[in-house]
Amino acid sequence: MSIQNILHENYTVRSYEMDLRGKASVPTICNYLQESAGNHATKLGVSVLELFKKNQTWVLSRLHVKILKYPNWRETVTMETWPSVRQGRFAIRDFIIFNQESEPLIKASSSWMVLDLKTLRPITLPEEVTQINVPDKPRAIDTDFPKLSLPENAEPVNELGVRLGDLDINRHVNNVTYVEWALESLPISIWKKSELAELEISYRAETKYGERVIVHADHVADSYTHLISSAGDKRNLAVVKTLWRDIQHD
Amino acid sequence: MSIQNILHENYTVRSYEMDLRGKASVPTICNYLQESAGNHATKLGVSVLELFKKNQTWVLSRLHVKILKYPNWRETVTMETWPSVRQGRFAIRDFIIFNQESEPLIKASSSWMVLDLKTLRPITLPEEVTQINVPDKPRAIDTDFPKLSLPENAEPVNELGVRLGDLDINRHVNNVTYVEWALESLPISIWKKSELAELEISYRAETKYGERVIVHADHVADSYTHLISSAGDKRNLAVVKTLWRDIQHD
Repeated sequence: MSIQNILHENYTVRSYEMDLRGKASVPTICNYLQESAGNHATKLGVSVLELFKKNQTWVLSRLHVKILKYPNWRETVTMETWPSVRQGRFAIRDFIIFNQESEPLIKASSSWMVLDLKTLRPITLPEEVTQINVPDKPRAIDTDFPKLSLPENAEPVNELGVRLGDLDINRHVNNVTYVEWALESLPISIWKKSELAELEISYRAETKYGERVIVHADHVADSYTHLISSAGDKRNLAVVKTLWRDIQHD
Repeated sequence: MSIQNILHENYTVRSYEMDLRGKASVPTICNYLQESAGNHATKLGVSVLELFKKNQTWVLSRLHVKILKYPNWRETVTMETWPSVRQGRFAIRDFIIFNQESEPLIKASSSWMVLDLKTLRPITLPEEVTQINVPDKPRAIDTDFPKLSLPENAEPVNELGVRLGDLDINRHVNNVTYVEWALESLPISIWKKSELAELEISYRAETKYGERVIVHADHVADSYTHLISSAGDKRNLAVVKTLWRDIQHD
């Protein structure tokens, strides 16, 4: 008998998780994805705490999110997530967020590597990961995460300091903060007339407390490319592509 | 028969709600308080959306939080909150957060005013608020919120820009952000050896997107006074008192 390794979890959008319009904010949606990924990895015996015991850790390499419709304040949504295909050294995890009428609101896919904490290099996926039963289920977003190209005429639009609240338990800046930084680089006028329809992020390097980052943005029609780099040593930390649409009033 | 107007709600600490130690962060604890206050006001028919209909809104004036013990990552805690005494134009709401063994972890009290949105001035509490049945129950923290004095030798320690993610649905900076700003003004060395035991905040004025704030801190023994002021017109936005203790390892 094949066990379907699919996790279902409910989230109710809280007041402090809203954006300016009273919908779940984009960072909140990314937080829900990250939370469910962690909870499912724990159930499957491959949590970050399990990997720490072998001097290994999970690293998020890529995230691709399509927001068909934003959950409202106080709306309860159901997260469905599962380990999907493997692509070489990358373990893929997919997500669909449904409303209570089973209508998909958000589709996402993420690509993860396992890092050796001694060499700080990615390793071949360990056996406890590769032996996990992958559900026989179509991808949420059918992508092999093609390389995101750097913005061509990126203007530096914002310089930000890492806040204490941006850090995770590893004392690195947490994945969702990069999304916030990219979105922060757009003028508030964008937020008043449009909403994020799609987001792709490629994580390149880590950053820590005390560092400052520069956010660049380049704009072609309704699509932006954002580059987040370290103000100090100019390392590229993340590349983000965002696609926007006019706000749809229900 | 007297109906006891007490709300009970559960919260499970999520991965993105942790501090550097893997416990619920102080802003997370404040978010839980704010969320439950809003949920209970809604059940009692005095939500901010109800007040908007009469061109009124709730304003948080004071918050006092005592953290006896921090909830752990993935721990489920139970929030108990109730409308407590009234103090003139102030409606007091108290909170106790319990662990699953019914041990109190956090005690808090908050003081709220109703603002007329035309005059932007506080008004006498409206009848739908004063007629709410106040449970016959001892206060969580027995305080009449004495005036917090300004720090005497406050050094400017940090200047911060308002982020989009700091805003609430009214496009004002949300209450918990001021707590983050105050905590952010302390050196990371404090966080490595000590934990916040108690926090008092007095909200003086609002701030909006596009503004910059200056955080000052003044230090006497294990107690800090923080002043948050507007970098532009030097208005005092909030005064915060924090008390710290050495980290207790379980």
